[in-house]
This record gives sequence, C-alpha cells and structure tokens, in this order.
Amino acid sequence: VPFGDRLAAAVATRQSQIVLGLDPDPARLWASTAASTSAGGHARTPAGAAAAAVEAHCRAVLDAVASAIVAVKPQLACFERLGAPGRAALGRVVEHAHGLGLLVLADAKRGDIDVSAKAYGQSLIGSTPSPFGEIAGLGADAMTASPYMGLDTIVPLLDVARPAGAGVFVLVRTSNPGAADFEDRELTDGGPLWESVARGVEALRAPGPVSGLSDVGAVVGATAPQHVTRLRELMPTTPFLLPGVGAQGGRVEDLAAAFAPGPAGGLVTASRSIVQAASAIGAPADQAQAALAEAERLRGIAWGLA
Amino acid sequence: VPFGDRLAAAVATRQSQIVLGLDPDPARLWASTAASTSAGGHARTPAGAAAAAVEAHCRAVLDAVASAIVAVKPQLACFERLGAPGRAALGRVVEHAHGLGLLVLADAKRGDIDVSAKAYGQSLIGSTPSPFGEIAGLGADAMTASPYMGLDTIVPLLDVARPAGAGVFVLVRTSNPGAADFEDRELTDGGPLWESVARGVEALRAPGPVSGLSDVGAVVGATAPQHVTRLRELMPTTPFLLPGVGAQGGRVEDLAAAFAPGPAGGLVTASRSIVQAASAIGAPADQAQAALAEAERLRGIAWGLA
Repeated sequence: VPFGDRLAAAVATRQSQIVLGLDPDPARLWASTAASTSAGGHARTPAGAAAAAVEAHCRAVLDAVASAIVAVKPQLACFERLGAPGRAALGRVVEHAHGLGLLVLADAKRGDIDVSAKAYGQSLIGSTPSPFGEIAGLGADAMTASPYMGLDTIVPLLDVARPAGAGVFVLVRTSNPGAADFEDRELTDGGPLWESVARGVEALRAPGPVSGLSDVGAVVGATAPQHVTRLRELMPTTPFLLPGVGAQGGRVEDLAAAFAPGPAGGLVTASRSIVQAASAIGAPADQAQAALAEAERLRGIAWGLA
Repeated sequence: VPFGDRLAAAVATRQSQIVLGLDPDPARLWASTAASTSAGGHARTPAGAAAAAVEAHCRAVLDAVASAIVAVKPQLACFERLGAPGRAALGRVVEHAHGLGLLVLADAKRGDIDVSAKAYGQSLIGSTPSPFGEIAGLGADAMTASPYMGLDTIVPLLDVARPAGAGVFVLVRTSNPGAADFEDRELTDGGPLWESVARGVEALRAPGPVSGLSDVGAVVGATAPQHVTRLRELMPTTPFLLPGVGAQGGRVEDLAAAFAPGPAGGLVTASRSIVQAASAIGAPADQAQAALAEAERLRGIAWGLA
C-alpha cells in the first residue's frame, strides 16, 4: 500500500494528526524512568546507561500518549549522540511504537549524492543486501530529507521508500529564524527558493490511489502560517509535516489550509510541549497524565480544523 | 589549537592534501579482509558480521594508504546502515585512523534546528553531559553540514567544534548534476545561491593565528573547476573539501585555485578511485599496492600544484 494511503488510513482510524517528536535529553527524562533505570545498577558505560534510560523514557511517553497521536518522530541526533547503545535503543523504540499501532517518521534531514542517499534509505527504511545476509534497517515508515543538493539526492530515497510503502518528507520552508538566510531568498525567475523546492516536491509526487495523498511530503514550519496557504496551492495533495507548534511559537489554530486535501494533509508535530507538559503546569508528579492531556488538547484542535 | 592551524600543520607534516573517502559496501570489500572475517565463523547477526568485515576492510585500506594521505572521510550512511554494530565499527575505524596520525572528517551533511544541531555536534565531535557520566562522541576532527535551513543551524555545530579545535565543512557547490536544481539558481540580489552560501561561510570564519586558515570549510565539487576560482575569491582563507575527483570525473590538475591560501587550502577527496584501484588496472590480487599507488599519484599531482 502506498504511503499516502497508509497515512490517510492511520489518521482516519486514530482520529488524530498529532505526531509526537521524541528528542530525549538524558538530563531531562521523566523522573519515574530515570529512577528505575539507574536503580538497575549494572556496571555500564555512560552511553549504555543513558541509552537504557532514554529507551525507558521513550517507552513511557509513548505508552502515555499513544491514544492521542498517529505517529512518532524520533530526532535521530538525540539517539546518535549515545553511540552504538543509542542506535540499539532507537531500534527498540521504533518497534515499541509499531506495536502501539503508530507510524514512525525518522527525523534525519539527510541529503547526499546518489550512492550515499541510497545507503541512508537502506539504513532508515529499507535493508542492505550483503554476503553476510540481508541487513535490516531501522524500519521507519518515512524519513525527512534536505533538498539543498538537488532532486537527484531525493530520488534514491524514494527508490528505497516506494517499494516499502514508505514516504519521504522534504524540507521546504522550515520553522527556524535562519530560514530567512537561504530558503526565503528570491529567485530571478520568480518567488522564493522554497517555492522552487515545492515545485520539485510536486514533480516527484506519486498519489495513493485511494486517498490521492502523495508519498512525497513537505516539512513546512507552523511558525509562518501564511506560507502554509501558498504551499498548499503549489502542492495540492502533499502531506505537510508541521513542526514548530508549542515551544517555537506556532499555533495549531492557524494551520487550517494544510488540511485541504483531507484530514491527513497536515501532521502537527509537538515534542517538548507534550513531553514536558507537567513542568509547564507546575505538576511534576503527573508527567504521563499531563502529557496525555496536552496531546489530547492538540488532537482536538487539529481534528476540529480538518 | 584552532582547526585551521591543525589542518595546515598536518598537511605540512604529511606533505599531502589527499583525503581518503571511506564508503564501504559490504558486497565490495577487499578480498583478504572479507575472507579473514568470514573465516572467523562466529554465529552473528548479518549486521554484526558485515560490520566486522567492513571494519577489517577499512583498517586494511588505511594501513595501505596512510603514508600518502592526510585525512580520512568516512561516509556515515555506509556505517549507519549496519545498525548498532556499524556505529561501533565506525568508532574503532576512527580510533585506528587517529593512531595512524590522520585527521578524521565525518561526512554527515547534517543540518537541523539549534537543539538538534547541538546534539549532532555532540555526537560527532564533542560529548554529551548526562547524569550517567559524560558520553563520548565519535571524536571526529571535523564534520560536513548542509546550509539549507540557514546559518542558525551551522552556528551550534561551531559552538561544539571550536572548543575542541575541530572544524565544520559547509556544503556550498556540490559535485552532483542535481546541484543545478537549487544551488545554481540565480538570486534577485545577484549571483547564484551558492555564492550567497559562500558569503555566509565567510561571515562565520575564524582564522587560525598561525596559518590564517579558517575553521569553517566549504565543500566545493571538483567537477566544476570554474566555481573553485570564484569561490576562492569569495572565501580567501577557507579550506576547500573537493569531492568528485576520479569516479565522478573531476581532475586534480584543474584545482590549482583552491591552494591560493597555502597547501592546506584544498583537500582532494577520493574514494572508489583509490580503494578499487586494483580493479581499474585489472590486478585484483594487489589491492593494497594499487590503492597506495593511486593515492601517491594523486598526492604528487596536488602537492605539485600547491
């Protein structure tokens, strides 16, 4: 089943467009999980101990909020900095998310020449043939990618993703202030660079036969809602991954244009605003409950717009 | 010691500007290493067996050509696709390269918002503080980064790299045909996008007090030598990492402009043309000898230009 149809079906079944971003900091884990893993007391390297605690934290967060979300978006940097134990922990977090019925979007932002792009696709979505047997990848349902080097760095990712029913979300107009440096620069043949990237994403599209949603998505920052409207014109059937809600200042209420092609047209990602919700309301003991309440609150707003 | 000065000293000591790219494919390893590791016969996962073979291959290649090169550039995708064992193998290859006196440039092409960029810096160059102890990173001397999202995604990498005497090489004008899609697009305020990125790299520069070379480098494809000249005007003291020689069609002879600020102004990277040199000359039994001969040939041409 093509990724666009898988995504639409998952959103319909779970009645949610909320994507939980997981960017675990080993110094800011949920108290219950940090305590239980350090109490384990095995002699380990710092990386091994931190990876075990991060894994327990991610499992606990997923268990708490799974009913309110459709997908999880692990930030790969946060696992990679824990070395080999971090990669192993990430693999188990992905399995746990799948077990809860969630899609997994690997936030990797990769972009490289053909042979390297293929290797990233094999690493995150597909698998690698070898004389030692087929080497399983992470098993993500989609990954994020950077377009700077051109479309010939995106196509090899799609070549791996499409046979697996997976998708690729290309950075188009991001949520950080630095987007003004290059993404917003005006081109002599009209419009900012991000419009040109959007046209490239549109050119690569392959719509799912049931939903009409493409398997090439776009990362569109929720901090600049006026761009969401314009990008929906340029990419009518592209799923938008919308980071920047919460800590970065974006508001779900401003994102209605994303949902024009259907409820799965916009995926609202939130990380710290869900995971650290208890700190925000001054109730540190109720981390799971506060996280679920915040995820449900975002779910309700987004579902009401769609 | 700032990265620019470390790089200049290494190039002077080793009399080489050649960077060996390591992008191991488990199906194309040197025959001697593939045989010895499979003969080990341990029951392992495919990923574990492939990672052991890849590590043995990389060690053998490094041992063969170390005398002709100044640095090694592991392509992270090729290790990441081997999962946790691949990350562990990469760490040992980095240690082996350092033991041979080589610099290590992690070819990661990362680019992400502030908190995630910092985590990538911690992963590849620095370390991560945690309640479980300080978590060591890969220990690379520099990493590559993508500028698409803006300079606020590069600065956090420099914030980690500078205290460690490490560097960051920013993609400016790459060697693949897709560079025409976005990098080459003309901006309304003059010049192509890659010139604007070059100005951003120049703005971030911090020169080493001895060499004058910056610790912010630029990735400049060797396949379009006319751009090397223009980019040297825009970034007079920036070290250029020059991929695309050999398999992609670039010629060392065309890169003289890169060396204007001194011998370390241009780093010539070659991967398959060195590692698979024996196949090219039809002498599969002499892989180490053929690789060294090709690395020495490139070294001699580049050193003659500098």
